[in-house]
Order: sequence, then C-alpha cells, then structure tokens
Amino acid sequence: MIKIGVVGGTGYTGVELLRLLARHPEANLVAITSRGDAGMPVCDMFPSLRGRVDLRFVTPQDAALDRCDVVFFATPNGIAMQQARELVDAGVRLIDLAADFRIRDVAEWEKWYGMKHASPELVAEAVYGLPERNRERIRSARILANPGCYPTAVQLGFLPLVESGVVDLSHLIADVKSGVSGAGRKAEVHTLFAEAADNFKAYAVAGHRHLPEIRQGLEAMAGQGVGLTFVPHLTPMIRGIHATLYARLSTDVNVQKLFEERYQDELFVDVLPTGSHPETRSVRASNLCRVAVHRPHGSDVVVVLSVIDNLVKGAAGQAVQCMNIMFELDESLGLDIVPVSP
Amino acid sequence: MIKIGVVGGTGYTGVELLRLLARHPEANLVAITSRGDAGMPVCDMFPSLRGRVDLRFVTPQDAALDRCDVVFFATPNGIAMQQARELVDAGVRLIDLAADFRIRDVAEWEKWYGMKHASPELVAEAVYGLPERNRERIRSARILANPGCYPTAVQLGFLPLVESGVVDLSHLIADVKSGVSGAGRKAEVHTLFAEAADNFKAYAVAGHRHLPEIRQGLEAMAGQGVGLTFVPHLTPMIRGIHATLYARLSTDVNVQKLFEERYQDELFVDVLPTGSHPETRSVRASNLCRVAVHRPHGSDVVVVLSVIDNLVKGAAGQAVQCMNIMFELDESLGLDIVPVSP
Amino acid sequence: MIKIGVVGGTGYTGVELLRLLARHPEANLVAITSRGDAGMPVCDMFPSLRGRVDLRFVTPQDAALDRCDVVFFATPNGIAMQQARELVDAGVRLIDLAADFRIRDVAEWEKWYGMKHASPELVAEAVYGLPERNRERIRSARILANPGCYPTAVQLGFLPLVESGVVDLSHLIADVKSGVSGAGRKAEVHTLFAEAADNFKAYAVAGHRHLPEIRQGLEAMAGQGVGLTFVPHLTPMIRGIHATLYARLSTDVNVQKLFEERYQDELFVDVLPTGSHPETRSVRASNLCRVAVHRPHGSDVVVVLSVIDNLVKGAAGQAVQCMNIMFELDESLGLDIVPVSP
Amino acid sequence: MIKIGVVGGTGYTGVELLRLLARHPEANLVAITSRGDAGMPVCDMFPSLRGRVDLRFVTPQDAALDRCDVVFFATPNGIAMQQARELVDAGVRLIDLAADFRIRDVAEWEKWYGMKHASPELVAEAVYGLPERNRERIRSARILANPGCYPTAVQLGFLPLVESGVVDLSHLIADVKSGVSGAGRKAEVHTLFAEAADNFKAYAVAGHRHLPEIRQGLEAMAGQGVGLTFVPHLTPMIRGIHATLYARLSTDVNVQKLFEERYQDELFVDVLPTGSHPETRSVRASNLCRVAVHRPHGSDVVVVLSVIDNLVKGAAGQAVQCMNIMFELDESLGLDIVPVSP
Repeated sequence: MIKIGVVGGTGYTGVELLRLLARHPEANLVAITSRGDAGMPVCDMFPSLRGRVDLRFVTPQDAALDRCDVVFFATPNGIAMQQARELVDAGVRLIDLAADFRIRDVAEWEKWYGMKHASPELVAEAVYGLPERNRERIRSARILANPGCYPTAVQLGFLPLVESGVVDLSHLIADVKSGVSGAGRKAEVHTLFAEAADNFKAYAVAGHRHLPEIRQGLEAMAGQGVGLTFVPHLTPMIRGIHATLYARLSTDVNVQKLFEERYQDELFVDVLPTGSHPETRSVRASNLCRVAVHRPHGSDVVVVLSVIDNLVKGAAGQAVQCMNIMFELDESLGLDIVPVSP
Repeated sequence: MIKIGVVGGTGYTGVELLRLLARHPEANLVAITSRGDAGMPVCDMFPSLRGRVDLRFVTPQDAALDRCDVVFFATPNGIAMQQARELVDAGVRLIDLAADFRIRDVAEWEKWYGMKHASPELVAEAVYGLPERNRERIRSARILANPGCYPTAVQLGFLPLVESGVVDLSHLIADVKSGVSGAGRKAEVHTLFAEAADNFKAYAVAGHRHLPEIRQGLEAMAGQGVGLTFVPHLTPMIRGIHATLYARLSTDVNVQKLFEERYQDELFVDVLPTGSHPETRSVRASNLCRVAVHRPHGSDVVVVLSVIDNLVKGAAGQAVQCMNIMFELDESLGLDIVPVSP
Repeated sequence: MIKIGVVGGTGYTGVELLRLLARHPEANLVAITSRGDAGMPVCDMFPSLRGRVDLRFVTPQDAALDRCDVVFFATPNGIAMQQARELVDAGVRLIDLAADFRIRDVAEWEKWYGMKHASPELVAEAVYGLPERNRERIRSARILANPGCYPTAVQLGFLPLVESGVVDLSHLIADVKSGVSGAGRKAEVHTLFAEAADNFKAYAVAGHRHLPEIRQGLEAMAGQGVGLTFVPHLTPMIRGIHATLYARLSTDVNVQKLFEERYQDELFVDVLPTGSHPETRSVRASNLCRVAVHRPHGSDVVVVLSVIDNLVKGAAGQAVQCMNIMFELDESLGLDIVPVSP
Repeated sequence: MIKIGVVGGTGYTGVELLRLLARHPEANLVAITSRGDAGMPVCDMFPSLRGRVDLRFVTPQDAALDRCDVVFFATPNGIAMQQARELVDAGVRLIDLAADFRIRDVAEWEKWYGMKHASPELVAEAVYGLPERNRERIRSARILANPGCYPTAVQLGFLPLVESGVVDLSHLIADVKSGVSGAGRKAEVHTLFAEAADNFKAYAVAGHRHLPEIRQGLEAMAGQGVGLTFVPHLTPMIRGIHATLYARLSTDVNVQKLFEERYQDELFVDVLPTGSHPETRSVRASNLCRVAVHRPHGSDVVVVLSVIDNLVKGAAGQAVQCMNIMFELDESLGLDIVPVSP
C-alpha cells in the first residue's frame, strides 16, 4: 500500500482525487490538509464521500507529510513550490495538480502566474505528467507536474499530427470549450449558476495561462517553434472539455490511420472511427480521452475533436495514472471506471 | 459467473444496467436484445461503453435467453409479462425493471396501465424487490419485480414512520421531484432540452401510475389502508429523485433515532445527521439512498427528505442488488461506486 | 415622468428593475447608487443593458435621492431602514425590495433577521405591496414593503382558500422550489454552477426568513392564526418559483370557481383551466402568476400549483406594479411583457 | 395595420414570431395554420401566450392567406416553395423562415436539402433578408428568404473583414456553438434533455446545410470565392449562438475601427469595446447581435466573437425586422426588447 497525503483537498480536483483514491486498492490515504477547515470531517464538506472517506482535514503541521510515500498538491498555484524542497529531501515524491512545475522557463512562468517561483532549481527535474508522451520519465520522477485540463485535451488532440510533422506548425488553432468546474470551487460571481447557466462565452482571448503550457508541449513534440491561437470558452455544463482543433496538412496523409497507430497501445486514449463526433459525456467521470479526426470536404484542413473529463484525465485521474506509473503499478489501477452517461 | 441476458437494452435503465454489469466480477453478459437495432454494436448506440461492452444487439430469437441464469427486462411495460412463463418454465430467473409484476391486484394494474395482463397467474409469486423490506423473499424469487424510481424514494423515506405506526396514516403527502431521465429515452416533445431546461413543473397531479405501487407498499408496511397524496414534478437535471415527505406524528417519538435504528444494517440507506439536507448529487451514479428527517419548529409535522439516483437505486442498481441477493453474492458486488460529485 | 432613484443596483433584483424601467414610458431614471462600483458605467457590469441604460453608478452622497419622486432599494436587508426616515421626511416615496418593512412585529423581524431595526416607528405605516390584497392602501403608501419571492407565490396560491375559510388552517403545507437567482448575485460556493447544476436539494427546513412573512400574510387573510409548514428547495434553473401547496378542505366547495372568481379582475394572476400544470417558463421574464387548483382523486386534499418569475412578480416587477399604483398610472405600464419561452 | 398570416406556427420559430407579433403595434395577426393541430387554441400549445394570442390554429384552406398583406412561413424546409407562386400572384408578400429561397444555385440547394425545388423560377427574385447587407433590396421584396441562425452570426462576424478584403479569404474558420432550440421542436432522441444537458459535442463536421448559405453570403461580400471550414457544435443552453471566427489578416488594419465604422448605423449590431467577450445571454430574447474583435498577442490572426439569440436575430426577430423594412415602418418596431439577463 502506498502512503498518500493530500494537500488542499477542498477544491474540485481535491474531492475528485478522493473519489478515485477511495477505491484504489493500493492507496492508503493517511492525511488531507486544509488550513481553513482543519478538524472538519471530510465528508461534512463533501457528503458524496460519506462512508468512503473517514478522515478529518488536518493542518499541514499535523499531517506528517514527510512520512508519506507520495503527496498530491490539489492546491492553488504557488503552494507546492514552497513545500517541494522539504518533501523531496525527505524522500517523498510529489504530484502537483497545480501549475508550479509545468513551465520549464521560470521567467515565462513568473510572467504568466504573476509571482516569484520559490523553487526554481527544482523546475528542471520536474517531469511533465502526460503519460502518452513521457511515460518513461514519469517512472522515476520525484516531482511530477500534472498537466492542466486544457493542455491535456489540446496536446492529445494535436500529438499525432505534430509529432509526425504533417501539418503547418505556424498556424494551429485550438478552439476549446470547458465545463464550469474547470474554474474551481472558489466563490466568484462569474461562475454562479445564474451567471453561467444558459449562457456561453469566450474568455481570455488575449492570453490564457494554459497557452505557454500547450505551446511548450507542442514545441517539444515538434522539435521546433509553433504558432498557436488558443481560445477558451465557458460552456454551461459541470464537467468536460471539448477541444476543436484546426490545422493545415502540409503532407497528404491518412490522418485516421496516423491517429490509430499512434494511440494503439494507449489505454486511456480512444480513437473513434472515421466520421465520429465524440461527446463530453462519453468520458464523464472516467480517465478517457476520446478523439476523432476529420478532413471536411477533402480539403487540406484537418479538424480534430478531443474530449476529456476535465476533473479526471484533465486533473485527478491523470495524477493517479502518473502515480501508478511512478510506483510500478498497473497503469489503470483505481481508474477502472465506466463513464456515467446519461 | 452468472449468465445474464438483457432484454431491451436501448433505454436509460438498459444502458445503466450495462454500465453496472460491465464491472460486476460475477456477471457474464451473454446477450442484449433489441428488435429494432439488432446487429448494431451496443457501443455504437452508447459510446460511453466503448471498450467495455463488446456485444451487438440481437433479436430476441437469437438471444437464447433460456440458457441464461437470469434475464433482466429493461423494456417498456407489458413486455416481460409476455415472456415470463416461458423463461420461468425453463428455470431462468427474471428481473423486470418495468412495472408488469409490481401490483398484486391485477385489476388495479390493468386499470392504471391500460392493458390486459398476459400472465396474471404469475403476479402472486413475484417478489417486490425492495431489499430493505423483502430481503428474505428476494433470495428465492423466480420473478423479481424491481420497484419504480418514485416508489423507491418514497417508500424508503416513509418506511420507519409507517412500519412503527407513529404517524397519522390517513394523510400522508409525497411531493417528489425527478430528473428528466426518469421519463426515459423516448423521443417526446415535453422532454426535449429546450422544453425541460430552465423550467419546473408538476405533472399527473390527478393520478400517476406509481401511486398504487407506493400505496401498496405503504399499506404492506402499515398492515392497514393509508391515505396518500402524491405529486410528481419534473426538474431540470438528468438524474436524481428528491422526495419531500410530510406526515403528522400521532405519537411523540425520537424520529432521528427511529430512522437510524431501522437502517443501521442497510448498506445502501444512509441516514444523515439531524438537521441535514441531502442533495441528489450526493448519490449520483451510486446505489445509495440518503435520508434526513426533520420536525420543523418542534411541531407534530415530520418532514423526511429522501434522495436517490433514479437510474441506480431507482432502477438498474437496485436490480443488480436484488440479483446479488438472489444468487447469494455479496449484496454490494458491482455496486461499489463512489458518487460522482460535482 | 416620475423621477426615480435606485439604491444598490448591482444584484439580480437591481438589474431586473433596470430592465423594466428602461422601457417604462413614465420612468425617468436619474440615479443608481453603488458604494463599491461608483464611477462604473452600469452597462459595463450588465452588458445586457448596453444601449438602454447610459448611467454610471454613483455614491449615495452624489445621488441626490431627496430630489427623486420615488427611490427603490434593491439592497441587502438592513439598508433601507437606515435611510427611510430621511427620504420620507423629504417627501420621497420609498419602495424596499428587501425585507426591512415586511414584518409588522419588530421583535419577530429582529429575531429572524439578526439585527436591530433602525426605524421601528416606520414599520407600522409601511404597506405590504401585494396588490391583489392591498391595492387601496398601496395607492397612498409612503413606504412600500415589496413582498419576498416565496411569499408572493405562496400567498397568491393560498389566498382564495384562506380568505374564504374553506380549508383547515391549522395544517397548511407549502413545498416550494426556487431557481438559483433567488439566492442573489453574491459570490458563494453553494450557488456556483458546478454545485447547483444537475442537483436538487431542500434547505432551511428548520426555518426560513420567509416563513414569518408568509404566515403574517395568511393570518391577515384568515383573520386568525394558521399552522404552516414551509420547505424551500433549490432547483437548477435560473429564474422561477413553483409552489406546490397542500390543504384539507373543511367545506365542500368548487375550488376552480373560487379561484376564477377571486382573480377575475387581476391583470397579473392567471387561473388556468381545471387539470392544468403551470410551468415556470410560462411566466419567464413576465410579471404574471399562473395558478392551477386540483383535488386529486376527489379527496378532501386540495393541491394548488402557483408559478411566478422570482425576479419579476417575485421582486422587480411587483415593485414596478406597486409604483404604478402609487403614482396613479395604468397598473400594467412597463409590464407589458410576453413571457419568453422556450 | 398589416394583415399577417403565419403558416406552421407550432415550432420554436413560430412561437417566437407570435411572441414578437403579439406586441407589435402594426401587426394584425389574422391566421395561424397547422395541419395537425387545427382547432386547438394556440395558447393551449404555448401557455406562455395565454392572454396574448387568442387565435386557434386553422387548416391552410381555412386561413384565407391570400387576403393577407404578408405571410410568414415558420415551417420545415420545402413548404414555402410550394405555396409561393399562388401567394405572390395574389399580391401577398412572403417571408420564409425556412431555407427554400436562401440558395441562389438551385442545383446546389437540391443537393443539400435532398429534394426537388418546387418553384425554381422564384429563387432568383427572392431577397436574402440580412438587412445589414441588403436593406435596399429588402424594401421591395416579394419573397424574403430569412437567413439561417448560424449564417446570421457568422456573416455578421465576418462582414467587415470580408467586405474590406483585409483577410486571407482562402482559409476562414467558423467554430460555432448553438443552443439546443436551434434543432427545433421535433421529438428526437439526441435533443432530449437527458442527452443534451451537461454535454457538449460537434456535429456535421463533414458538411452542414448552412455551409453553402454562409459561403454564398461571404462570396457576395468578397466578390470572389472563399475557403471556409465550418464546425457547428451543440451546447447545453436553450437559446443563443456564439460564433468564434478565425482569419489571417493580409493587410495591417485597425480591426476595431473597421468594425465600429461598418456598423455605426446599424441598430441591431453592437460592436463591443476592445478586449470584450460577448456572452450569449447579453442578447437573450432580443434582436441584437453583439460582436467583439481580437488580435491575440498582436499576431496576424484575427478572432471575432459574434453572439445572437438564434430564435430572434437568428430567426423570428430578423423576419420581423425585414417585415418592418418591407412595409416602410420604423425598423425596430416591435423589437424594442431589453435582453433578459440573468
């Protein structure tokens, strides 16, 4: 059994992580911290976990995280970087669901996240936890930077095209739609039900924090710079991301075959048959990414549709998948979930 | 392994049953029938099942249901009763998720369901599959009448009060709210998104088919007649039933203790602490019923709040729970699901 | 033209009031105050008003409210009572959309609202703005206490039964469902989209602030005490209240006729034909209340279904209706809105 | 007063047209036809219209449409073209909300709509009812082809860029999201609430009927061929279209100024300030189109965000706007609606 600590379990990625760990046969959840809610039973905050998680929130000091095998940070940005050095030195592996270790260029990170990085010397060794790209490096990671939700959907959608170099890399478009849980469990006006329901909008067209993360990932795949336009949108559903990706083919290629071959050994990426339109609910509550690839009217424009559950493959599920890899477990352990539909 | 057939797997109770059976360690799903869609892979209709259910729909004739151990009917009303005799005679046990065997009074059934009963002689031996009431009889049932969704939520909410005889039985009120999946996967105008979203309405105030089923259940608990007003409502959510139940206490009693004691050994009924308000999402995708009991302002009115997922405890999950009992398995096998929230 | 000031126009009742006043032919909106957002154009906060409301928010000091004919308070509870004396002395009439002047028993008010009343001497003269009960007194009101949303739906539903004395007044039940905008535009976790969508729950079963208001109204109609159980629920829609009301008839009476006669001269109360089920969307964005009355199975239980738009007849629309009455205008001026459906 | 007939008033564009005409000061609605529901009061089908529309549906034969000044067809595709000749010959003007007269190339129309055109000789004289392009020709139109919902949002978004020739016309992308009412009021499985809620999907990537209509419009603006990729999506809201449009600038130009100047005299197109993100609810129930234009990171990619209410500016509202133009009325008559938000 793996001794697990969770820092900051009061947000949506936190409760989702608890949902998954509660059924994981090798997970021994020993502590969940919350500064503000220490002492409260976890299931008082999240009644869905009644009977499944018996812990109370504890303060970080009481959590004895240094005796864990792995600690998940389901915190806002800027927390994990402050505690990483101490944990790593104590031999504890760290999985950060926030953004602290995602961007290799520290100055770039500091620009987008508006704060000074507390452990810049650890950034270089952190492994970006997209198993479909970095499985081998994840195995031995001490610090795992779990990808963002938008970056997961977009990278998995572009990956076969960009790795193989068959598209014009200077002009990629990612038009992405997210459910509202992607904005987190913070009390804010714009994500109130009466604001977000029966409504649709784009946001952050001028620049979203996930843009440099996606670009970094695509450039690593391409081995060169890429030009990317990324427009995120808020759609009135709880969970789910739908990425609609546009690129121009520079080489005539069977894109369906390209996708099928690239993902044939991937447990959690499902390439749909030609002509398909994946729905976000077809992956709801599961760790799957389903993708479909189109060439409308036989033109040189390729359209990729990529869907994930932002809280699972886009956050907690991918983190558990990475944990499984890091601890040499079956990669799908605890992730054997049939999507909930309708 | 139990050899299982499913008749009529193209509705919401059908796909939910498949979701549950796909992960049930003792379930060997051998055939799913659909007259209209025979030949189609199940996962073409339900992409959420891709990779989990490899069967194609077959015609009833091709299904060889008589070689199954148990056959689930996830059909419209009036189908199971036509095939029951043959299956029972072949030694196959039958679990009907529709209403054919729920009402013991055949004339009453025929009045509410508007058709002639095809196997009236089998009605008497059918067992009503509410484990919290009938666990012993379920064990040996050949024909299991799986309760309706409203009846499950209402009966589990009233049960401790009615069994113990502490309320005025002549004037019970059940004000119940259902998600739209309760209306099934039929193409109908009133359940279109643009009709049912951002909208709330009562329906069938003059009389709903679940009324006689609930009344029969309550009268069995009470050992006498009851007066019940039942008003169902449609609420804009996919899954979930919330029953708000009103009764007048005829005896002063600690209702919280009454509920806790009655349900202390029940795996799937969770009595919340005093003062709680269960949410439907706290049971989403799980087989749980969560209940809370109130006496506002210390008056003689007792208010019970009871929530279930209509497709699980209100349909497919309860059917699997009954199957587990019928086949002497651990009652929670395949039902070990942490509710999906948010 | 009536010179109008609005205090606190940044919540949902505020923006709804602006929507209505923007098209009211006799409304001359001269000032909208907001302490926090002074200086901001109103339509920067509410883009739906672009081109319709050109004002900026001003501080209360800059608003010169004492030169208005009427001032609406679309504020949290406890604000209007502080400014009422000064405005009334300046000859300005006041319409409070909050609760400061709704409860005649000041001690009772202070208990439920948890604060000391700042103008207890004005409470007695305030008129409760339910036109269907108090039209004559509204005409001359200096202080108008605009009813709450739940109280409007419940009182209009019970009114014909309680005024006529045909039901058992000791045991009335109001099971009421509200859209999420009823909770206001405050940033709170429980009304986030990801919390409130696809979910249903009761709340405040032990006691809700609207209970004493409803009881006071019903007792005024009855001329005696009443016993009321009131259970509010949150339903995943933006606008709308659906009240399901239960009472026992003590006299055999034609309830349909009773309702039709009582409301025959009311512009904004629509009694539906026998057997109807009003939907909340049938009144969306309008000032209508639609009601239907049932006697299921011919029993002595009468069930009333009453729907309103909580932001219109339950708040801003009723306030404008009262203003029209107070200023001797056509009662429907500015309220000539066809409900928006779907 | 204009004598108006409506053919096929039982769908969403029909009921929306009735909502608008009910308050139009020059509209004298004399007949609404429905083959299937003749005899039924309109407000029995649409309770939101109770008290506002007193007509009953009549058969086409009983409607005496030839005595109307104008007849709206709110029918499925293929109906208006059968009755057009007779009406036109009788001097009745015709506004078709369906697609019969939208595509000038009859062969192209027949390919996309899968039927033979019944009045090909009338296609040439039909005027495409986008006032922002064709106001002058609309004035004298005998047959008005009201634009589709997607085409309205996309064309108004691209118009200033394409008319002025500042973008690469060979590679335009329109990623468009529609509320579910766009699919109409037909009973179909995929638009059921339990299918479409909490879900997001693209559809018809291989080709949608609105593609040739949009392309025809853009080519008319450009005076040359254009390359367009159009991907429609279904989003879980009732009303609203959000078009996200991508193009590459071929000339460096102040796009904000370009849009503001082009639309400065348009009543129903609102160009938002730089940096804005229009929400669909900001136009809900109104005839407005709000657009914003971005150049992310100062690149050569221009992103246009364009929102409309699909049932108003995308259907019934635009039809009324065209009627106003055709009958020399104030263009905004009957369309003076403040958007309903929240």
